[in-house]
Amino acid sequence: MKVYLAGPDVFLPDAVDIGRAKVAICAAYGLTGLFPLDNQVDRDRADASLQIFRGNEAMMDAADGIIVNLTPFRGPGADAGTVYELGYMAAQGKLCLGYCNDPRLYVERVAALTELKSLSGILTDPQGLTVENFGLADNLMMIHALDLHGRPLITPAAAPADLWRDLACFEACVRLAAGPIVPAASA
Amino acid sequence: MKVYLAGPDVFLPDAVDIGRAKVAICAAYGLTGLFPLDNQVDRDRADASLQIFRGNEAMMDAADGIIVNLTPFRGPGADAGTVYELGYMAAQGKLCLGYCNDPRLYVERVAALTELKSLSGILTDPQGLTVENFGLADNLMMIHALDLHGRPLITPAAAPADLWRDLACFEACVRLAAGPIVPAASA
Repeated sequence: MKVYLAGPDVFLPDAVDIGRAKVAICAAYGLTGLFPLDNQVDRDRADASLQIFRGNEAMMDAADGIIVNLTPFRGPGADAGTVYELGYMAAQGKLCLGYCNDPRLYVERVAALTELKSLSGILTDPQGLTVENFGLADNLMMIHALDLHGRPLITPAAAPADLWRDLACFEACVRLAAGPIVPAASA
Repeated sequence: MKVYLAGPDVFLPDAVDIGRAKVAICAAYGLTGLFPLDNQVDRDRADASLQIFRGNEAMMDAADGIIVNLTPFRGPGADAGTVYELGYMAAQGKLCLGYCNDPRLYVERVAALTELKSLSGILTDPQGLTVENFGLADNLMMIHALDLHGRPLITPAAAPADLWRDLACFEACVRLAAGPIVPAASA
């Protein structure tokens, strides 16, 4: 089983190491992890971004499932590129799993970044835009995509010391993707 | 032709009016606009968010294309729920169109929100995460999804007075979705 490993991990300075660590965890559970950084191209090419897109899309098309890292990126919610890939895989009926290393609810994260108002029970931000308040970790489209196209989002009981490099929740997703372990006695 | 109208417009206090205006513009070009707010359910239901998800997914499955509003939402980039829907439609080979009422590049928006560093030509944010700098309006996955699964992102020459309610770029997308207009003389 091939699993596409989506997340803003590719933007980390040590992205190559994180990718290797994720692929190694997949291998330990019998899965083939596909890390998008393996699609990186010569960034001096005029069409570098298009080549990366094509590489990522081909990798997703070749995968049987996806594990998304929805840890908040430059704001209260998940990285948009990662979320695009979740939608792309959900539409193909492929197995969708995900984790978020920030255990807070979406509404709590928005409240930590800006002042919210409550109007007739509806929370709004300073621009007057409603803040989703369904007790979910992020926008309902991603959270329920996982519920209905895979397994519920995995979050830690408390935020790990290194939000970007702790792979415990990632490993929990890999374990789910690998399926039930057959006890040795009955193997 | 049915077009799903995705965007953080649903979070505006006057979302119902915006939705009606968008559907009316679609109708003027012979298209049926499907606005997700029509899926809103009783928010006191325990499963309200799941019902909204199911409604939106069914609406996307019924649509022939999508027009996404990628105007930045609570940060430097597009709304994640909207981006999920773009991926979902792209994977089905449906027509993907989009606009962004903020004409700046992604890197310019990040730089306006936080201080960037340049290390060997790579821009990073205060967390040390790379800032995509391909001269694009947002994450390459969305921008090239539009290029390859529809038509390039539409942006205004200058930001409109009301980023959330100006529908000129939206109408430009509708015009593209409707296809070339047959001159009356040859009809």
